[in-house]
Amino acid sequence: MNTIVLMAQPLTKAAFAPYGDVIEIDGAQHFGINLDTVERYHDLAKVEADYADGGRSVISLASVKVPCNLPHHFHLIERHPKGSQAFIPMFDSPVYTVVGPKGDNPKASDLKAFVTNGQQGFNYHTGVWHMPIMADEIGKIFVMIDRAGAGNNCDEFTFEEHRFELVAENT
Amino acid sequence: MNTIVLMAQPLTKAAFAPYGDVIEIDGAQHFGINLDTVERYHDLAKVEADYADGGRSVISLASVKVPCNLPHHFHLIERHPKGSQAFIPMFDSPVYTVVGPKGDNPKASDLKAFVTNGQQGFNYHTGVWHMPIMADEIGKIFVMIDRAGAGNNCDEFTFEEHRFELVAENT
Repeated sequence: MNTIVLMAQPLTKAAFAPYGDVIEIDGAQHFGINLDTVERYHDLAKVEADYADGGRSVISLASVKVPCNLPHHFHLIERHPKGSQAFIPMFDSPVYTVVGPKGDNPKASDLKAFVTNGQQGFNYHTGVWHMPIMADEIGKIFVMIDRAGAGNNCDEFTFEEHRFELVAENT
Repeated sequence: MNTIVLMAQPLTKAAFAPYGDVIEIDGAQHFGINLDTVERYHDLAKVEADYADGGRSVISLASVKVPCNLPHHFHLIERHPKGSQAFIPMFDSPVYTVVGPKGDNPKASDLKAFVTNGQQGFNYHTGVWHMPIMADEIGKIFVMIDRAGAGNNCDEFTFEEHRFELVAENT
């Protein structure tokens, strides 16, 4: 079993663009709504689903039951072939994510790790591989926006010859 | 000008059902995901848009610029004819909302006011009339999930002979 260390880099729109959207106020297009009492930071993430084929988009909440700390070891990634999946933390501590490009044969060398600045969410585009969501404290909550409906919308892939060790940028 | 006092009642799924969804953990269907490290409170709100007609669903953030306190006076309501609109507070203080049933001729006597318990969001179904979003502190942030795309998706209605005074339940 070969251990591959993934060092998290800061999550930025440019670096994350091949995988999805960064949901953040910084750098967003924005305009006043409601007689300019509220500023809307608009269209930060594209919500995708197979609407023409019975899919629909839903809002859910995800609450951490088993906290995970760094270094975090894993060898399984997943993807959602029928829609996007967004996670927006309801807390302001950093969140780690690992992603890999779309495609049927994920390569260990293609995985990339990111860490939020505590004020960011992220949205995986349809089919993008990613590590299951994790956070470091029981009861931390994410808003999720993803696809519901009939049929399989979660493919898992286990790396048999590698395990990944996710570490923070500064370790 | 006739003032109509709207006294906010606690937001519950049952009371809000004619207008939309309450986004909350309490009472939700739920199940473990990610090897049972995370509990998913599933399908709390239906995201609607005119997908077949060029609409799409997007995630935005809304930040309060002008705080509003109770009693809050207003005479304008709005609706979104092409899709749902969800607001999920990123803070845990109560949020007030006023809603009215779908239809082209809103009646003053049909408006109802609700207040969250600080752990709830809400989702207006397509075409449901509502007061523009408000909160009591600059910089408070809501996650918004609604429809983007070409064409008008915001109708406003001004009550010429009434103004509304939104008050808390216990005043």
